[in-house]
This record gives sequence, C-alpha cells and structure tokens, in this order.
Amino acid sequence: MKRIDALKQVAFEKKGSDGFAVFNWANLLYLAGFSGAVALVIPRDGENTIYAYGANYEQAKAEGKGFRVELVKHDENLMAKIAENAKGCKIKKLAVDALSIDGWRALAKETMGETTLRVTRNLIWELRKVKDAEEIALMRRAGELTSEGMKATYEVLSPGMREYEVAAEIEYAMRKRGSYGTAFETIVASGVCSAFPHGGCCDRKIREGDLVVVDVGATYKFYRSDMTRTLVAGKPSEKQKKLYEIVKTAHEKAFEAMKPNVKAKNVDAVARKIIADAGYGECFVHGLGHGVGLEIHEPPTLNPCSKETLAAGNVVTDEPGIYLVDYGGVRIEDTVLMWKNGTKKLTYGSYSLGGE
Amino acid sequence: MKRIDALKQVAFEKKGSDGFAVFNWANLLYLAGFSGAVALVIPRDGENTIYAYGANYEQAKAEGKGFRVELVKHDENLMAKIAENAKGCKIKKLAVDALSIDGWRALAKETMGETTLRVTRNLIWELRKVKDAEEIALMRRAGELTSEGMKATYEVLSPGMREYEVAAEIEYAMRKRGSYGTAFETIVASGVCSAFPHGGCCDRKIREGDLVVVDVGATYKFYRSDMTRTLVAGKPSEKQKKLYEIVKTAHEKAFEAMKPNVKAKNVDAVARKIIADAGYGECFVHGLGHGVGLEIHEPPTLNPCSKETLAAGNVVTDEPGIYLVDYGGVRIEDTVLMWKNGTKKLTYGSYSLGGE
Repeated sequence: MKRIDALKQVAFEKKGSDGFAVFNWANLLYLAGFSGAVALVIPRDGENTIYAYGANYEQAKAEGKGFRVELVKHDENLMAKIAENAKGCKIKKLAVDALSIDGWRALAKETMGETTLRVTRNLIWELRKVKDAEEIALMRRAGELTSEGMKATYEVLSPGMREYEVAAEIEYAMRKRGSYGTAFETIVASGVCSAFPHGGCCDRKIREGDLVVVDVGATYKFYRSDMTRTLVAGKPSEKQKKLYEIVKTAHEKAFEAMKPNVKAKNVDAVARKIIADAGYGECFVHGLGHGVGLEIHEPPTLNPCSKETLAAGNVVTDEPGIYLVDYGGVRIEDTVLMWKNGTKKLTYGSYSLGGE
Repeated sequence: MKRIDALKQVAFEKKGSDGFAVFNWANLLYLAGFSGAVALVIPRDGENTIYAYGANYEQAKAEGKGFRVELVKHDENLMAKIAENAKGCKIKKLAVDALSIDGWRALAKETMGETTLRVTRNLIWELRKVKDAEEIALMRRAGELTSEGMKATYEVLSPGMREYEVAAEIEYAMRKRGSYGTAFETIVASGVCSAFPHGGCCDRKIREGDLVVVDVGATYKFYRSDMTRTLVAGKPSEKQKKLYEIVKTAHEKAFEAMKPNVKAKNVDAVARKIIADAGYGECFVHGLGHGVGLEIHEPPTLNPCSKETLAAGNVVTDEPGIYLVDYGGVRIEDTVLMWKNGTKKLTYGSYSLGGE
C-alpha cells in the first residue's frame, strides 16, 4: 500500500485529481502486487477496487490483500462498472494511466456528466523509475539468473549449431535455476543477421568465424533483466577484435559515467563519442540504454534526446553497439543499478569474444 | 501484398476510407511480414510505407519487400511524419487500427484540418481470423512443437520437482526442436494453485497426489499454439478421476461441435452443459476458447456471449475446465483448426492423468 499512498500523494495532493483508474498491466502489477487484474480504481475516499474477469477472480481475491475485488462477467461492461464506482465514491476528476482510444471513448461515454477524465501516464512511471529495496532484491536475482544463462552461451557456442539450439541451452540454464521465463525474446543473431540490432533467433546455422550477438534476459517474480555479449564462433579476425575493443571501451566508459544526478543524454554521449571517434558513429544506430523493471523497456531512456536525469534507484541498460550491414554487429550490454553508495552491475561475468 | 489488397478492398471500397494507418504489432506483422516496424501507412494512391526506428531500419529495408521504408529518428515525431505522408497522398479519411489515447491525440493534432481519423480495429481482425494455407503450415509446426513439449511433461513430472523445473524441461524440448520461443508464459500450476486458471509457474514443490495443470505453447515463425493437460503427481484419487472424466467429455464433445457455420456460443454451450449437468457449472469460470494466431488471444472468442460464427480457416482453442478453490483444477486444451474438409487438432498426443 506504500506505492498506492505515494501515487495518491502525487495524483491527488499535487495534481488535483480525486480518483485514479489504472489499466496498464505493469502498473497493475506494481500497485496491486499480482497479475490478472484488468483494472484498479483508487478513489480519494473509498475502497481501492480491483476488477478481474472470471478466470482470475479467485486468484485476485487470494492474492490481492487489502483490496476489494469485483468480478467482471462476460456480459458486463467494465467501463460502466468503473463509472458507477467513480460515481459512488464521488470522484469528479478521474486520472487514467493509459487506455486505447476505444477504451477511452467507452469510459468517457459511461462517465459523461459525472466525472471528467484526464490521462496522466507519467505519474506511475515516475514512481516505477525509482526501485525500492524489495524490487532491487528481485532484480538482483533476475540478473544472476541472466548471467548464468550467458555463461552457458560461452560453454556451448560452436560453428554448426543453429541459432535456436544456442537459445535452447541458454534458456534451459536460466529456467532450471529458477527463472520465471524470458524477459523478452532471446536474440541469437549470427553472421550478417548480427548486423540487425533486433536480429532475432531463427534456424540459421552458425558458421566458423561468424560474429554472434546474444541478447538474453531472465525474469524473477515479474522483474526482468537484460544482457548482451558478442562472441565469435571460432577464431576472431583482426577486424572483429578491433570492433569489439571499441564497443567494450564505450560500454565501460559509459558505465563509469552512470551516476545519480547525471543527465541521461550525457551518459549516452560518452559512449557515442568513443564510437564516433573510432569512425563508426553512423553504425551505432540506437540509444545507449533503457530502464528495466517490470517491463523490459521503461523509463529512464538513455539516448541523445533524453530529457531525464539519472537518480539512485534507477535500473538501466548500458548497451553500445556497432552494426555493419552485410558484415555483422557487436553489442555489449549489462543491466546497471544506480544506488546511493555506487553504481553496480546486476548482470556480470567476464566478457570476451570467446572462441579462442 | 495479397493481404494488403484484401484490406484495401474492405477499407477503401466498402468502408470509404482512402488511407489506412496500422500501429498494432500483430497487424504490422500480418501485413508487412516482419517484426520491427512501428507503423505502416497504406494509401489508396501512393506507396505503402513502413516506419522504423534506427535499431530496426536496416532490417526493415532488408525484409520489407515491396515497401518504402522511412527512418524515424530519436528527435522526430512519428505522428507528424505520418500526417505529412497522408497529406502528400491526399488522404482525406484515414482509418486507424488501434492507438493509445495519447497516440490518437498526437495524430489528430498533426492531421487536423487535412485528414479525418476513424478507428476501424475490426477490419484487420476479420482478415486475420481466417488463416490462409501459409499460416496454417506455420501453425501446424507450432502445434507439433507444443505437442513435443507436452510429451516431455509426461516423461519428467514427479513429486518433489519444483514447478519451474518442469517448465524448464518442457521449454527445452520445444526449443531444441526449433521453437522460436514460448507463445505465452508457461503455466505449471500444482496443488491448490491449479485451482487458478492462470495459476502461473513458481517455485512450489510438487507433492504426491497434486493435480498439476500444464498449459504451454510453442511459437514458430511468429505463429503460436496453445495446449493444456492436467496430470496427477502420483496415483490419481477417485475424485480426481471423476473431475477429469467430466472435463474430458466436455472437451471431446465441444471438439465434435466445432464446425464452420456453427455459432461460437453454441460450441461453448455444449461443454458448459456437460460440466453443469455434472454439478460443476459454477466452477467453469472462463470461456471455452479463443482464437490463436500471431497473438495468443485473438478472435473468434468462444464464450456464452460470443456473437461470432465459426468459419473455415479459424484456429481456436477448446479448453473447458473445472476449478475447485482450496482443492485444485482440471483443464484439457487443444488448438483446433476448422477447415473445409473437417476439423483438426493442431496439438495432439494421448491425454491422461498420467502417473499411474
């Protein structure tokens, strides 16, 4: 309930709403502590109410401690139920975190004349950006499991394997140690496919000398992690080693720059300058990093246009890369926690091109 | 391009729009044939344009055959680019498949005075509901891989294992045979947790005599599959066997009722009546099934309120269940294809309570 109190403080005391309707799945997880709710209504005066369909209703009652749980039947209109609740709690200004245009129109129709709506998506994101001790413990575990998965990559990768066979070993290593699932679709992108940052993982057979970008994450109790290493299947060439050293330096120097009260775009600039000075500026085709938590991409974002300033409790990725079309790519990534007493990597393990 | 032509036919000829902007990730996959696009604009007159951020731009150019690909830079406004394109193509009535309220407002602001917007989410869903031969081939493969995963469940499940250890073996069996990933978060819900239809998969140790609901799906080239079996760790009790027989009969009779031109709610009713007649009507807390394809839940939906009629090319699940709070649950599910020459299961394999 600490999180809901914090939200009430901002949304009601500072922003003048007197009710909050939450629809985004990650925001629901964050505030209610379990999955399966379809909506949560927090009134200034009244009970916090979780809405759940039949398939999740009993679970919501069992796990949603301190909430009233309302069943939404197949033939019932969720928005009408929420509007009725808002009326009962005398909500005049209902803040909404996120909705589709269809959902918004349906809710607006039901609340018309009684309650005005406003979108205030960023309020919960501002809270979620700063992880508390409980969240950090879960993210540490997710990072450990991810690091174990990456260790398996170094153990098994060899020419002749198919990309999905490598993914199978990584995911198995994480899962059997307690991962709750992958944090995103595992990337094992080899050869020319590694030149695509989101090169996927298909049935391509890995060839001797291929660059292989492996981007993987475990989930632990809904919290995610994100890590990339680039390996060569076989003996690295001089060009591969050179590209690797540039990206490694950019990765390390960006890590050193990640501190509370530093502007996110300035950290991105550290890595970007190193890669540009080496002559590959045009080949670093994405931002340096992104926040990680319940979602794999969340604020704060680290790119040349970021407006955010880093803060203690932020968890972000540090993932510079160089991508040469028709040749291959190199990316090195860790998930990083900024904390009062220093910046720490939540994913770890030696990084090398392997294969030698 | 066949799919885009079909969309143009409905959206432009029948519904009177002269442009279509696609934002939903699955619709983008369906129409553009690859992942990584952030939007697609289809004008009545002009080039079909894919929008991609830097990280996906080169991949979009390589894989987006027949499309113009436009780069969206970090500091550029996607909606402004789309509005400019709409103006260039003289689009007066732009249909939009799906947008958040924020996205909608941003697009409306940029197109104001030049182009009117309308949401027509269902048009693409109507197309996607009817799978073509190419899609069916991929879904068959996804079903085969899923069935292999379930086979692993019967081989490994035993008292003393943790839920995530069972999931590890299932996912490994699918992945090493070529699965592109899990179609959704694997459920291995044991004991009292099996009474929750979405009981998840945690670190609970499975005990002798537990009901264990295993709900799993492989993905093959973006197409998904969905399958559930319920096992007992050890020797099933008479009560467990009785519940199982009821659900099995409901599952089989519903399968027999699944045919083109039959109302979806009537198929749901077949299973629901069998479970209700056995005295467990209140314990079948969800619909009989849902469509499967690029998304794990898509139309058509089979529940008591469904308005849809089944058609050849639909792929849906058949998944009745009985859930007894504080005791456990039983669910049996297959992914089913309705086709001109008969209804077929895409997931298969003997189903029994196992363990004897």
